[in-house]
Amino acid sequence: MVTRPEPDTQPLTAKGQATRERIVHAAAELMFRHGVAGTSTPAIRDAAGVSSSQIYHYFADKEALTRAVIEYETRRIVGAHEQLLLRLDSLAALRAWRDVVVRTVRGTHYAGGCPLGSLSSELAEHDPDAREALAAGFTRWSGAIRDGLRHMIEHDVLRADADADKLSLAMLAALQGGLLLTQAQRDCAALEAALDTMIERIEQYAVGSAG
Amino acid sequence: MVTRPEPDTQPLTAKGQATRERIVHAAAELMFRHGVAGTSTPAIRDAAGVSSSQIYHYFADKEALTRAVIEYETRRIVGAHEQLLLRLDSLAALRAWRDVVVRTVRGTHYAGGCPLGSLSSELAEHDPDAREALAAGFTRWSGAIRDGLRHMIEHDVLRADADADKLSLAMLAALQGGLLLTQAQRDCAALEAALDTMIERIEQYAVGSAG
Repeated sequence: MVTRPEPDTQPLTAKGQATRERIVHAAAELMFRHGVAGTSTPAIRDAAGVSSSQIYHYFADKEALTRAVIEYETRRIVGAHEQLLLRLDSLAALRAWRDVVVRTVRGTHYAGGCPLGSLSSELAEHDPDAREALAAGFTRWSGAIRDGLRHMIEHDVLRADADADKLSLAMLAALQGGLLLTQAQRDCAALEAALDTMIERIEQYAVGSAG
Repeated sequence: MVTRPEPDTQPLTAKGQATRERIVHAAAELMFRHGVAGTSTPAIRDAAGVSSSQIYHYFADKEALTRAVIEYETRRIVGAHEQLLLRLDSLAALRAWRDVVVRTVRGTHYAGGCPLGSLSSELAEHDPDAREALAAGFTRWSGAIRDGLRHMIEHDVLRADADADKLSLAMLAALQGGLLLTQAQRDCAALEAALDTMIERIEQYAVGSAG
């Protein structure tokens, strides 16, 4: 995709919004399957059922479309985790979140990895804007885990000396690394071991635990 | 790179071995910087200072060269970790391994991520042979961590109820996820949090600890 003049910046009509979303969804699906480099404008055009000029109307270039895909995947994935983590009020609820993650990955037969992790691995060194958008997505994600842990501290499930900032970063790293290993090994063992070990560490901050 | 006839399978001369290694080193460096899809035969040829026909003499196609790169990176990276982990005999030695990892990543200014992790993210869905080679590399890596933990159990540093298989998988996931987040966030916090939290979990199996 070559760079074109800036697209129309007027507010979108409902129909325009729907067309833009169809393009982003199609691009996200193709980029998840084939990577950003392996996704061409004609492929997006055919998958979205739009014309190339419609794509250029909404997105100045491939970088702009890629950023829209990052925002879409962040909303979709991190948004879903936020729903699960927002009101964590017990260790059982934390384990239920873990079970949803593992069940979702099993449902994909371990294929694909995490869309945000894969985009980050492909783009971090070549597209600084994409890297920053992905970093912001990961920060929002660990923030959701942190808020869940803080909620547990406020509700006297975890002791106040539990470092929610550190544990949430560690949990997100365990999740991302577990997804990466699961993708390579076609086996959920590393993901389960990583999440379970992190939860065991958190359990040692349970109120009443010796720590 | 197009598929060519099978290359010569005669044992290599010392000079042939050196040329082959120069090609693999150049390809590994380029693939680390630009990904496999972003690395062309002419670029490898120029970086290695060889002719295209020399590349085709040693490697039937790009897939074969990519597999040689995976083997090279596995030997280089996992081999280095094996040296550090082989004779772990104290929690201090485990923390020293963690410090080497963090220092190495700081030395790269957080750029690049893990070559094996990046290759896996790019290739796992499109090149089954590469995926299997990467899975084997990760298994060797977690095996090195597991052997280090077992060594600590045998030397009464850790209790026998420490699950070395599970903890080593979890540690490798934490390391891979920490490296991925560090690459996106240009900040070592997630890597340090992940490794430290895993080590804290392992410390709870220290002989004399309540567990």
